Amino acid sequence: MEALDYHAEERRKAEFDLEEMKIVWAGSRQNYEISDRMARLVASDPVFRKDNRTMLSRKDLFKDTLRKAAHAWKRIIELRLSEEEAHMLRSYVDQPAFTDLHWHEKWLPMAYKMQIIGCYAQTELGHGSNVQGLETTATFDPQTDEFVIHSPTLTSSKWWPGGLGKVSTHAVVYARLITGAQDHGVHGFIVQLRSLDDHSPLPGITVGDIGMKFGSGAYNSMDNGLLRFDHVRIPRNQMLMRVSQVTREGKFVQSDVPRQLVYGTMVYVRQTIVSDASCALARAVCIATRYSAVRRQFGSQNGGPETQVIDYKTQQSRLFPLLASAYAFRFVGEWLKWLYADVTQRLQANDFSTLPEAHACTAGLKSMTTSVTADAIEECRKLCGGHGYLSNSGLPELFAVYIPTCTYEGDNVVLLLQVARFLMKTVSQLGSGKKPVGTTAYMGRAEHLMQCRCEVERAEDWLKPSVILEAFEARAFRMSIACAKNLSKFSNPEGGFSELSPDLLEAAIAHCQLIVFSKYIEKLQQDIPGKGVKRQLEILCNVYALHLLHKHLGDFVTTSCITPKQGALANEQLRLLYSQVRPNAITLVDAFNYTDHYLGSVLGCYNGNVYQRLYEEAWKDPLNDTVVPDGYLEYVRPILKQHIRTARL
Amino acid sequence: MEALDYHAEERRKAEFDLEEMKIVWAGSRQNYEISDRMARLVASDPVFRKDNRTMLSRKDLFKDTLRKAAHAWKRIIELRLSEEEAHMLRSYVDQPAFTDLHWHEKWLPMAYKMQIIGCYAQTELGHGSNVQGLETTATFDPQTDEFVIHSPTLTSSKWWPGGLGKVSTHAVVYARLITGAQDHGVHGFIVQLRSLDDHSPLPGITVGDIGMKFGSGAYNSMDNGLLRFDHVRIPRNQMLMRVSQVTREGKFVQSDVPRQLVYGTMVYVRQTIVSDASCALARAVCIATRYSAVRRQFGSQNGGPETQVIDYKTQQSRLFPLLASAYAFRFVGEWLKWLYADVTQRLQANDFSTLPEAHACTAGLKSMTTSVTADAIEECRKLCGGHGYLSNSGLPELFAVYIPTCTYEGDNVVLLLQVARFLMKTVSQLGSGKKPVGTTAYMGRAEHLMQCRCEVERAEDWLKPSVILEAFEARAFRMSIACAKNLSKFSNPEGGFSELSPDLLEAAIAHCQLIVFSKYIEKLQQDIPGKGVKRQLEILCNVYALHLLHKHLGDFVTTSCITPKQGALANEQLRLLYSQVRPNAITLVDAFNYTDHYLGSVLGCYNGNVYQRLYEEAWKDPLNDTVVPDGYLEYVRPILKQHIRTARL
Ligand SMILES: Cc1cc2nc3c(=O)[nH]c(=O)nc-3n(C[C@H](O)[C@H](O)[C@H](O)COP(=O)(O)OP(=O)(O)OC[C@H]3O[C@@H](n4cnc5c(N)ncnc54)[C@H](O)[C@@H]3O)c2cc1C
Ligand SMILES: Cc1cc2nc3c(=O)[nH]c(=O)nc-3n(C[C@H](O)[C@H](O)[C@H](O)COP(=O)(O)OP(=O)(O)OC[C@H]3O[C@@H](n4cnc5c(N)ncnc54)[C@H](O)[C@@H]3O)c2cc1C
Ligand SMILES: [Ca+2]
Repeated sequence: MEALDYHAEERRKAEFDLEEMKIVWAGSRQNYEISDRMARLVASDPVFRKDNRTMLSRKDLFKDTLRKAAHAWKRIIELRLSEEEAHMLRSYVDQPAFTDLHWHEKWLPMAYKMQIIGCYAQTELGHGSNVQGLETTATFDPQTDEFVIHSPTLTSSKWWPGGLGKVSTHAVVYARLITGAQDHGVHGFIVQLRSLDDHSPLPGITVGDIGMKFGSGAYNSMDNGLLRFDHVRIPRNQMLMRVSQVTREGKFVQSDVPRQLVYGTMVYVRQTIVSDASCALARAVCIATRYSAVRRQFGSQNGGPETQVIDYKTQQSRLFPLLASAYAFRFVGEWLKWLYADVTQRLQANDFSTLPEAHACTAGLKSMTTSVTADAIEECRKLCGGHGYLSNSGLPELFAVYIPTCTYEGDNVVLLLQVARFLMKTVSQLGSGKKPVGTTAYMGRAEHLMQCRCEVERAEDWLKPSVILEAFEARAFRMSIACAKNLSKFSNPEGGFSELSPDLLEAAIAHCQLIVFSKYIEKLQQDIPGKGVKRQLEILCNVYALHLLHKHLGDFVTTSCITPKQGALANEQLRLLYSQVRPNAITLVDAFNYTDHYLGSVLGCYNGNVYQRLYEEAWKDPLNDTVVPDGYLEYVRPILKQHIRTARL
Repeated sequence: MEALDYHAEERRKAEFDLEEMKIVWAGSRQNYEISDRMARLVASDPVFRKDNRTMLSRKDLFKDTLRKAAHAWKRIIELRLSEEEAHMLRSYVDQPAFTDLHWHEKWLPMAYKMQIIGCYAQTELGHGSNVQGLETTATFDPQTDEFVIHSPTLTSSKWWPGGLGKVSTHAVVYARLITGAQDHGVHGFIVQLRSLDDHSPLPGITVGDIGMKFGSGAYNSMDNGLLRFDHVRIPRNQMLMRVSQVTREGKFVQSDVPRQLVYGTMVYVRQTIVSDASCALARAVCIATRYSAVRRQFGSQNGGPETQVIDYKTQQSRLFPLLASAYAFRFVGEWLKWLYADVTQRLQANDFSTLPEAHACTAGLKSMTTSVTADAIEECRKLCGGHGYLSNSGLPELFAVYIPTCTYEGDNVVLLLQVARFLMKTVSQLGSGKKPVGTTAYMGRAEHLMQCRCEVERAEDWLKPSVILEAFEARAFRMSIACAKNLSKFSNPEGGFSELSPDLLEAAIAHCQLIVFSKYIEKLQQDIPGKGVKRQLEILCNVYALHLLHKHLGDFVTTSCITPKQGALANEQLRLLYSQVRPNAITLVDAFNYTDHYLGSVLGCYNGNVYQRLYEEAWKDPLNDTVVPDGYLEYVRPILKQHIRTARL
């Protein structure tokens, strides 16, 4: 039974070379091979089984996670995996653990070798987004050449750091540096939390887990923790002194290392988040697409089979834009890797000119791609009807584990406001001759973008990348200009910014959508081998752009970038594009090359044998251990036998 | 500490009479009193505690649910509660149990008295939305005067019915009626599943739970079940014979009871779903609003307190429309109660004329209000930043338990397509002199709606209900007309409907939004006592309408209902309205009168003592039972001590 491929027919319909598309998706043949090898390694190892994860208690789940983390570590050593391979392997294990925290590798080389386990303790009960408001103090004691780390208030308790609650032995603690009577703002300090002998918390340290989070499995495998300090002393050299230092005498010295340096790390981290977004989105889309081809409902003619729900235009109009977005985010993620390399190179050459733009760009893309992905996972679940609500559809857990990315590494709204601020600054400098760079370069063509008119006359005109690009550029630019104009009416610019912030958010989103689309077009300008591969990517690129145009029609029309008639033509073209995606849909998600293990979804399994598997999985629920449920005698039988009722009435 | 009210200042700011608003929200003074009494009854009873719910295993959760259900039943009897009081009490228990399944009360009076426990077994593995495609068979055997109930295929297994898996003794089973060689389509049959003595499944019955669903607590308290029949025999009189009958001789007879009768039940059930939507939405909004007033981030001036995040315009623009929607859904839910009464009365008088319209209207409102509510709960969670991701924020569980309402009692997309079909029919009959009724009556003013122009010139013109109403009517009507026009271009109307279905969805949504808004206006035309109460409701009504206008600006502008300039003015007015909501926000959510028990949220607690409670709750996680976690010795220490590494390298 399992040998049958229920999707065989679908797979035959594909109009492109799957193997080449897999390579495009992976980024290169080498990436593809590593990724494929690591995925299979994890999938075939019984220690990494995860099908019973949602049924484990918190304690068992946590222990299971430690076991998997140790096993992954062991395999990495045994197989002498490269850093890249190790990263892939861990990501296919797909169970957040202390060993997955990216910054390890960057910040604490010693920690990477795991002589200590570190965590990143910035957020407090009272402060997350506003890092400058943190309350933990690090007071220099010149007598002993030490810092005294202290939690002066309840709200100063560290709260959220992953790995902190139960496993970390050390933390990078962000605290207000105090020398004498002076507060020098927030700096980082390395603090040991637990004994390396028996793991017990050191004197003055209170540490624990902050409790259950969204979902049953999901992020509950991670010990996000709380931490309080009661005058804990650390040597002076445990301050992170790259940007500022405290001397033996207690003098505070700013180094001449520019503050923008920290942007480099941010660009790195956010770039990984964008590329993770494309993975998560692809995963949800893969499940929903495969199931939509298996699921049949209505439309049977003369007793023949019913219609596959993927053939309904509403299903297509909900699903295919998400498929297109997965590819779009993939390519912009790839480009961000290049951007990070570029930024790093420039930093080494002391060229900081592109940093603010790179920073705004990654902030915006982090925000936009994670918000879209979070919503998309839930939409994919809904696309699966009732069965999507079962844990074994894989979608509930994917949602629960994914959504915090909208909050951590910068709240998505706070980030978009930063982008908007950068856009307003860029606009305000347009007159001054300072040329906008990078992803804001289009703003240099101000005059053209303010007056250009879209020339679409027939639906097929909407297939020209240059036409769509101009519409997106004009829309983004005109929205920024409109905001700037409205801002100028306020006497207090900060007050104006705050008052108009909802509009500014929308301008920032328009800008980010433009970036994603334009990077997709750039990708298409490359040489892409393989029969039909480029053609498919072009179709998806158009789906990506035109669905956004339809969704934000108000933006495009009210800024006179397009006419209502042109909007209707775009919509017509979009429908035609869906029909072109349809025969290729299954193969387009096959290109993600996800194993059934990684997908963790009965509905999304490769061979489409959905019903058999749903039925088999059901019996594994602990509730089915007995035919008569625990509690029947005490709580159900008395009601049935009316004992309660008759006793009183 | 707990005595302090952190919201006292906020509560003093309110510009209206809270007690009167509570009555408006509850629908009447009597409703308010019942609801208040039941909420307190539940909150004060230790059996109904639910704060550890997300930490229970599936089995323990299920047993806990049976215990609560039995206890609720006991209290209902002891206190001789009315049906209405009993319903309220159960809903405040807030843990889905077999005793909550509405149809009990309607369909099986015997079951209400609990001599049996029934469930509604319609959906199968292979068929949900398409009821006519069900595969279970009920074959009449004239020899024994029995029906033979059978599951001929894997996909015919019953799947999803609540209460089926572990507790139901009986089920209303939907199956294809076969007499002789004839298939008469799907009918209902009452089938006993389990022994009333020892609860064991009867011969030929395979029954069990279908497994874990979204979330950790949430709907996992319910035993949604699977069921297979192996030639199970039931007496002929166990067919539900209201609409059709089978005679002793095996003759199939259609009664003259009109088929529309079933619409009556649908109107009833969907009306309760709409009113539940307003409750769930209000709950999420209450949590997010209270926390947004406690949470301060950024904006400290000279060391003073930071800005409450509720003062940020972006926070307001995300939150206040949801607050307004909660009130709007409340009022449309109230109106639906009237509609149901009206429909029932007409049915008794054999007047079926309004049924199709009532059916389309409730289908649309069910779809629209549940989709908005589901998304809104997640938005409220995001509005709480990192802490919203903790289970004890109450929002994750609320989301997980709420979202299946988008799927059950009709998939929301399938329902909207039904609405669209009804709209197209109404439009096609406009010429024929048949006057559209009820919520489609506005279509009778076709000529006016096709040519009217919005007369807004200044932002404050957008405060006139008649102005907004006309814009909403014109937009909905013109979208329907545009769809009808495009449909007429297809030679095959069904093919056209399917091809244009994404546009038809949008037209249906526009129609539903109009209904909600117009019922809100009707509510405001009533006499509403209490200082400032009506004023607040007017402000929220305008927020509701103008945020939709902004969100769907493309619809309004491309149909020439409003100009871009007028759209901008609406947006300006919306911002001003937010400022008017702001001082009343906390009191507007107090008006929901939710107990801390029901809210189940550390972030949303009445007195706002958020940080203290977060800190205390954390320690209750089982992971904190020991300082050194289970698994440390086996899986963490060896890594730290480099045993694995050095062993191999
Ligand atoms: C799963 C998870 C893992 C985490 N891991 C770590 C970790 O390892 N280490 C660590 O230090 N931290 C960690 N965090 C914490 C995380 O970084 C913060 O939660 C995040 O920065 C958001 O901050 P916040 O919670 O203070 O949100 P808040 O800032 O309180 O946000 C609340 C609301 O206020 C709004 N808001 C805030 N400021 C503004 C403004 N200026 N203008 C307009 N609106 C505003 C937000 O948009 C949001 O709607 C983690 C969090 C989670 C959920
Ligand atoms: C928590 C829960 C409780 C439930 N309780 C019960 C119960 O007590 N008793 C019972 O009998 N059932 C119950 N159900 C089942 C429920 O009624 C069905 O899941 C629901 O009717 C949806 O049907 P489906 O699952 O077949 O979805 P599908 O119809 O398979 O939907 C899959 C996708 O196809 C799309 N689609 C389907 N048809 C069309 C079409 N014609 N045009 C366009 N798109 C289409 C849908 O929009 C959706 O995106 C329950 C379900 C849940 C989740
Ligand atoms: Ca659990």
